Amino acid sequence: MTRLTLALDVMGGDFGPSVTVPASLQALISNSELNLLLVGDPDAITPFLLDKADASQMERIRIIPAESVIAGDARASQAIRASKGSSMRVALELIKSGDAEACVSAGNTGALMGLAKMIVKPLEGIERPALMTVLPNQQRTKTVILDLGANVECDSTMLVQFAVMGSVMAEEVIGISNPRVALLNIGEEESKGLDNIRGAAAILKNTHAINYIGYLEGNDLLTGKTDVMVCDGFVGNVTLKTMEGVIRMFLSLLKSSGESGKQAWWLKWLGRILQKKLAKRFSHLNPDQYNGACLLGLRGIVIKSHGGANQRAFAVAIEQAVQAVQRQVPKRIAARLKAVLPKSD
Amino acid sequence: MTRLTLALDVMGGDFGPSVTVPASLQALISNSELNLLLVGDPDAITPFLLDKADASQMERIRIIPAESVIAGDARASQAIRASKGSSMRVALELIKSGDAEACVSAGNTGALMGLAKMIVKPLEGIERPALMTVLPNQQRTKTVILDLGANVECDSTMLVQFAVMGSVMAEEVIGISNPRVALLNIGEEESKGLDNIRGAAAILKNTHAINYIGYLEGNDLLTGKTDVMVCDGFVGNVTLKTMEGVIRMFLSLLKSSGESGKQAWWLKWLGRILQKKLAKRFSHLNPDQYNGACLLGLRGIVIKSHGGANQRAFAVAIEQAVQAVQRQVPKRIAARLKAVLPKSD
Repeated sequence: MTRLTLALDVMGGDFGPSVTVPASLQALISNSELNLLLVGDPDAITPFLLDKADASQMERIRIIPAESVIAGDARASQAIRASKGSSMRVALELIKSGDAEACVSAGNTGALMGLAKMIVKPLEGIERPALMTVLPNQQRTKTVILDLGANVECDSTMLVQFAVMGSVMAEEVIGISNPRVALLNIGEEESKGLDNIRGAAAILKNTHAINYIGYLEGNDLLTGKTDVMVCDGFVGNVTLKTMEGVIRMFLSLLKSSGESGKQAWWLKWLGRILQKKLAKRFSHLNPDQYNGACLLGLRGIVIKSHGGANQRAFAVAIEQAVQAVQRQVPKRIAARLKAVLPKSD
Repeated sequence: MTRLTLALDVMGGDFGPSVTVPASLQALISNSELNLLLVGDPDAITPFLLDKADASQMERIRIIPAESVIAGDARASQAIRASKGSSMRVALELIKSGDAEACVSAGNTGALMGLAKMIVKPLEGIERPALMTVLPNQQRTKTVILDLGANVECDSTMLVQFAVMGSVMAEEVIGISNPRVALLNIGEEESKGLDNIRGAAAILKNTHAINYIGYLEGNDLLTGKTDVMVCDGFVGNVTLKTMEGVIRMFLSLLKSSGESGKQAWWLKWLGRILQKKLAKRFSHLNPDQYNGACLLGLRGIVIKSHGGANQRAFAVAIEQAVQAVQRQVPKRIAARLKAVLPKSD
């Protein structure tokens, strides 16, 4: 195995180093080939390393000092202007300088998107990078969905580019051959939806390198009817969050359903066992399990973690970065784009 | 109790009279004050009445013949042009003529929306009616959500009108005083989202008759943080269908979770009991329980049922119509609109 170095913006997210540093240590245990550059305030980072990291972990960690942190609720344009020296920007610059092969941040999405475009640069032919994630589905396979909020408004060309990038992800990273690609819409008939979606459908129907299967509706997000679901960033963001909200509600109802006080102790005990079994059955749907959206369409790998990620979820985001590096995602997308997209006009 | 007459487009939906007529009989049993006008092909309707309806039910049913049916997948504009004599149109005309107080259809959404606007007419000050439904939430209260697909594109004014109509529904129909109203967005910060949403926010902040609480995200749809959630019809449709897809998947996983073959019989038996308890606990979230979106902003009451509604779900849609009639929804919305909306400019 070749060694692999990631830059982590450990200051980002709702909990900062208290979550990101323990998650880093966890990732080092799971991946022996991993080295981590923890970018942020050394004084905030070290308390979570002292007595927690062993010598072999410490050897594979370097703290890269950064003076400031971009606030999670800052306006992206302002944040980018004042980003010099911030943990997010320093982490991204480590990709550019070749010191890191990917970057993970739980910080401000808009700022990450803007800075990544500025520093890591988009691939040739890509207007705007898109946020993509891989969801578990009912068929126990995976569905790629994008865009999840990088672009609130998208024209047909952007949707087509997302379809290409999603298709590459499904094929190269999940290993689905000739992956099915659908556009998320409010009906399956051709006349449905918004102009940009109908425009993208017209282009995709004539793009033979993409296995375009038509429109699908929101209820098909988890049925596994498609391998790639394409939508604009506004719809993708609302859809994903709605889905996560419902799943979290179910998981918490399941968890609390063993806690009724009126049963005999043995019934309670059995109830708890069965409820644990059920929770396990549903665990592959837990949003923590698929944390980490990949910013696709860049010359490097940038992973956006949920701001509210816990330790386990942030470790999953780090793992996503590892996989993206190993599968050489940007290189593969670039190659496919060259074959599929018309010369920019 | 005063008697109450509804017109049902019994030919609409995926299953036509085989679902809608048994649902009608069920509704007559639950509501002794109800009379029903079953609009459609008499030859298709009567087989589901013979030997199934008793004399007292038959007394409260009248079959209103209609020559044609609008196909579920027809283009709305074409369907409307050719709608004369169709079950949907005849049912709506029964509202206009005063023979029915509300209409229920599981047919083509676009055609229903267009025909309702044409025949039943919008209230003064309403540009476009909106589809609204009432969702159960985690707090065991209800959340009004609109628009669910009547208007794929909405400007700020339309979103504000939806907010007003949703607020009236929450107050008058669900009984929530001073209901909280939120705009569905991709973040809670003021700068987030699309122009039409930010524009609506600016108006709502200065509309004192509306208890506007700001933006909420998709994961708050079921948390009960707001009483009314407002969005455009494209986002609302995708969001609702995503939510329903996830819920149906959970309910089916729950149902099948008692069917593992490896357990002892007594463990299986206990498992089934507990699983039934769980299913009951989640039953208020079953999409069938809240079938029937109300087309708000019209001078009459029009309820759109899911096309794929089963008997129970279609009966729920009929019940929604009964409630809307009893609560005098259009009259109350008209009164509030007069107080809240500025004179049209």
